[in-house]
Amino acid sequence: MAKTNPGRFFEEYRMGEVIDHAVPRTVSGGERALYHALYPARHALYSSDDFARSVGLPGAPLDDLAAFHLVFGKTVPDVSLNAVANLGYAEGRWLKPVYQGDTLRASSEVIGLKQNSNGKSGVVWVRTRGTNQRGETVLEYCRWVMVRKKDHDAPAPETVLPELKEVLAPEDLVIPEGLDFTNYDFTLAGEPHRWGDYAIGERIDHVDGVTIEEAEHMLATRLWQNTAKVHFDATHREDGKRLIYGGHVISLARALSFNGLANAQMIAGLNGGAHANPCFAGDTVKVWSEVLDCAETPAPGVGALRLRLVAAKGGAPFALKGEDGRYLPEVLLDLDYWALIPR
Amino acid sequence: MAKTNPGRFFEEYRMGEVIDHAVPRTVSGGERALYHALYPARHALYSSDDFARSVGLPGAPLDDLAAFHLVFGKTVPDVSLNAVANLGYAEGRWLKPVYQGDTLRASSEVIGLKQNSNGKSGVVWVRTRGTNQRGETVLEYCRWVMVRKKDHDAPAPETVLPELKEVLAPEDLVIPEGLDFTNYDFTLAGEPHRWGDYAIGERIDHVDGVTIEEAEHMLATRLWQNTAKVHFDATHREDGKRLIYGGHVISLARALSFNGLANAQMIAGLNGGAHANPCFAGDTVKVWSEVLDCAETPAPGVGALRLRLVAAKGGAPFALKGEDGRYLPEVLLDLDYWALIPR
Amino acid sequence: MAKTNPGRFFEEYRMGEVIDHAVPRTVSGGERALYHALYPARHALYSSDDFARSVGLPGAPLDDLAAFHLVFGKTVPDVSLNAVANLGYAEGRWLKPVYQGDTLRASSEVIGLKQNSNGKSGVVWVRTRGTNQRGETVLEYCRWVMVRKKDHDAPAPETVLPELKEVLAPEDLVIPEGLDFTNYDFTLAGEPHRWGDYAIGERIDHVDGVTIEEAEHMLATRLWQNTAKVHFDATHREDGKRLIYGGHVISLARALSFNGLANAQMIAGLNGGAHANPCFAGDTVKVWSEVLDCAETPAPGVGALRLRLVAAKGGAPFALKGEDGRYLPEVLLDLDYWALIPR
Repeated sequence: MAKTNPGRFFEEYRMGEVIDHAVPRTVSGGERALYHALYPARHALYSSDDFARSVGLPGAPLDDLAAFHLVFGKTVPDVSLNAVANLGYAEGRWLKPVYQGDTLRASSEVIGLKQNSNGKSGVVWVRTRGTNQRGETVLEYCRWVMVRKKDHDAPAPETVLPELKEVLAPEDLVIPEGLDFTNYDFTLAGEPHRWGDYAIGERIDHVDGVTIEEAEHMLATRLWQNTAKVHFDATHREDGKRLIYGGHVISLARALSFNGLANAQMIAGLNGGAHANPCFAGDTVKVWSEVLDCAETPAPGVGALRLRLVAAKGGAPFALKGEDGRYLPEVLLDLDYWALIPR
Repeated sequence: MAKTNPGRFFEEYRMGEVIDHAVPRTVSGGERALYHALYPARHALYSSDDFARSVGLPGAPLDDLAAFHLVFGKTVPDVSLNAVANLGYAEGRWLKPVYQGDTLRASSEVIGLKQNSNGKSGVVWVRTRGTNQRGETVLEYCRWVMVRKKDHDAPAPETVLPELKEVLAPEDLVIPEGLDFTNYDFTLAGEPHRWGDYAIGERIDHVDGVTIEEAEHMLATRLWQNTAKVHFDATHREDGKRLIYGGHVISLARALSFNGLANAQMIAGLNGGAHANPCFAGDTVKVWSEVLDCAETPAPGVGALRLRLVAAKGGAPFALKGEDGRYLPEVLLDLDYWALIPR
Repeated sequence: MAKTNPGRFFEEYRMGEVIDHAVPRTVSGGERALYHALYPARHALYSSDDFARSVGLPGAPLDDLAAFHLVFGKTVPDVSLNAVANLGYAEGRWLKPVYQGDTLRASSEVIGLKQNSNGKSGVVWVRTRGTNQRGETVLEYCRWVMVRKKDHDAPAPETVLPELKEVLAPEDLVIPEGLDFTNYDFTLAGEPHRWGDYAIGERIDHVDGVTIEEAEHMLATRLWQNTAKVHFDATHREDGKRLIYGGHVISLARALSFNGLANAQMIAGLNGGAHANPCFAGDTVKVWSEVLDCAETPAPGVGALRLRLVAAKGGAPFALKGEDGRYLPEVLLDLDYWALIPR
């Protein structure tokens, strides 16, 4: 019996099946410090326990995206080891903040299957849930990937296409218990702009840039226990390059968006996202945002902004797609998310 | 209204004004571990809680320079985003050790202003204070920078030159409450040399060297939430180089000085410092020290040494300035500080 | 008196002498997080406090190899600063897990001396012990190194060759108090293979590879406060390369062996190890294991496997030595250890 994990092939997924992912993980101040070393993260609610307490939380949570990466990393050996492409995300929701001392685990339910017409691969949709040591779901998201078949003659499963929301409605968002922005300190947070200062359609060039090093993206990707060979092994691709984990670009982009969106403190929902082009070490990443929507929430002083976050390596700000409707070659990431911001 | 921070220009500073800097930060064992990964730091008082307790402290503090960088980083968006040059430091004092769980914030008072004769820039002096969650000042220092004017026609402010001490007197130094070196363990600390073993004028070649990588200085500079573009964005300078944060060189130099100054445990005062030449990845940094002065302190067993710490990329040890009185091109740092050492 | 540490030369070691090494170190969640960032470490018992508690421990210990490196690092200034070669390890035993908050120190006893026939160097054998703040030995190992003489005319010491076990017997291994694998969760651990599923002589290609960056091995080596110049200073060797600390290769190899040995959770014994060839940044490391022996232990549900762990840069899996009996040039590490695994 072979001892190493061959990953799953398309024909091995069954509709409705729940896969419990391995390697639970306890987080501490170490993960928080590393997040601040790896990304230019400055959102006060995640940087300062005192600031977090001033808005009704027991302390500063682990960055929402760090929690996402931790959960995502656990799914790689079961979901994407034989993936050809990471096709999309939907219905991502952060349900409980993650605090130091929490232990996260993850499971994924197969919610859709569709074999490709070539018979050699298929698309698998999963709904992944991250849970803490009390069994509470801390976040969930849907993701679909194209996965190779091992046996091309294996019969195609019945096609099931999940119904996924294009965009989460404001009422789908879960506000952390106790969150109260009525006494929010804008000076400590770094910018005066509140919910009402942002207009739908407004676009913000976040100005700052970061040139990525191999050591950095590998440290980050390993920290989330993501095992995909292509991020670490320079002999894996024919061109000798190590592909940067898409989540590294997401965290880098989000951190860079602080400059102009310092008060968009918490990520509450992920509507969708595309890794438009691959990112490699040496790329200098700059980002811009567009306000797609805004909404009130029932929590005191808390508003929500739906934001498009775009990361690119070069090119002009606000450029996204060409006349052919396809992403420009310098665009790395097009993310659509809901953030919580003081009203 | 533009949402991103344009930084302040010279004409926007007012004498006596106090700027509260953003993004408070809670530190944990994570920052301590990262400090040990980023620098060859070995001072026992910062490495071991038990050692720190054996000299009267409640536990190992965060490295004094880490506390300095954390405070310094917060000032960058308000003080040095449009700075042309970092001109000097003075009257730096460490007033309270920073412990795990502490949350630091910072504010700066404008204590001097002088427009340059060209009318296009001016010098701003600030006194910066870092405070903890109890409102206690943990450190303070003066710094002056040359800042661009945005509007060259803006009127010059009245010139005010602050009176700053060339050197802190021994009685200006604040000894941490409870510090007692009478039962100091020289074996655990790593060297037998005590206060009386150092002579004024003595120079020490610290021998060891470190070749700096891009990933390392960026991880460090981000950890302190320093946002200056020039450290991270290889497209920012015309030569495509990323300038290394001067504080990275300070911490590296101080850590390398362990070999010969292992017992110069705590930094109590910063008299001045010059970043003589820029540092870039690939530079191999070596350091030497000179004993400038010595003093007793009222704390049991605790003496003070005033030390010059010089970092250079190549060149011979103890070389500092040329015949023209200017720093040699290989000299990176010339720092003047007071350290506490067992008598 | 010169202030810097010149290291010890061969003629300065005395049989039976015990050297107390400097710089005690307190560990926290920071060291754990960094270990996960630096290595693709995924063993559940070290990743999750809850998993560790489910097998009878009070929480997740610091990785056994991190504890080893911490102790090893302390010995460098006293044992290997003037070493020409690191010749071998034997009788390594992990006696107590290291937990967050523990403070480690180290001492080494000289247990063997043999001057080389050329009269210019000699071999020193030491038994090193790492102890915690309660004075309990957490690990011990023997190591021998070839050390230069300073004075070639210094008389040769009496030759003493220590008797060292080729291989630790299963009864030499110390099982952590309370360890109980009877309710071990194989799903959370990541693989179904238990003790009985491994056969003596079985070899496992662990498949994954990592290309090493300069920043990574330096961060790791500094984290363990290892001061050997050759790892950090690119001007130290004539070829301008920084030699990677052998322990970095050990930790990388062990972490990569997760894929196929996910349940070989704890390292209990180190029988021996050879750093067969030097490792440099840019090398892509892959690993394979061979099952050398197996044994039962008195602890409930706990078995032991004796494993050979081989790391290589290129070449075919399972290739180790040439026809001349010497290690192939691509082999980096040949390690022989005992691991604890559920039966």
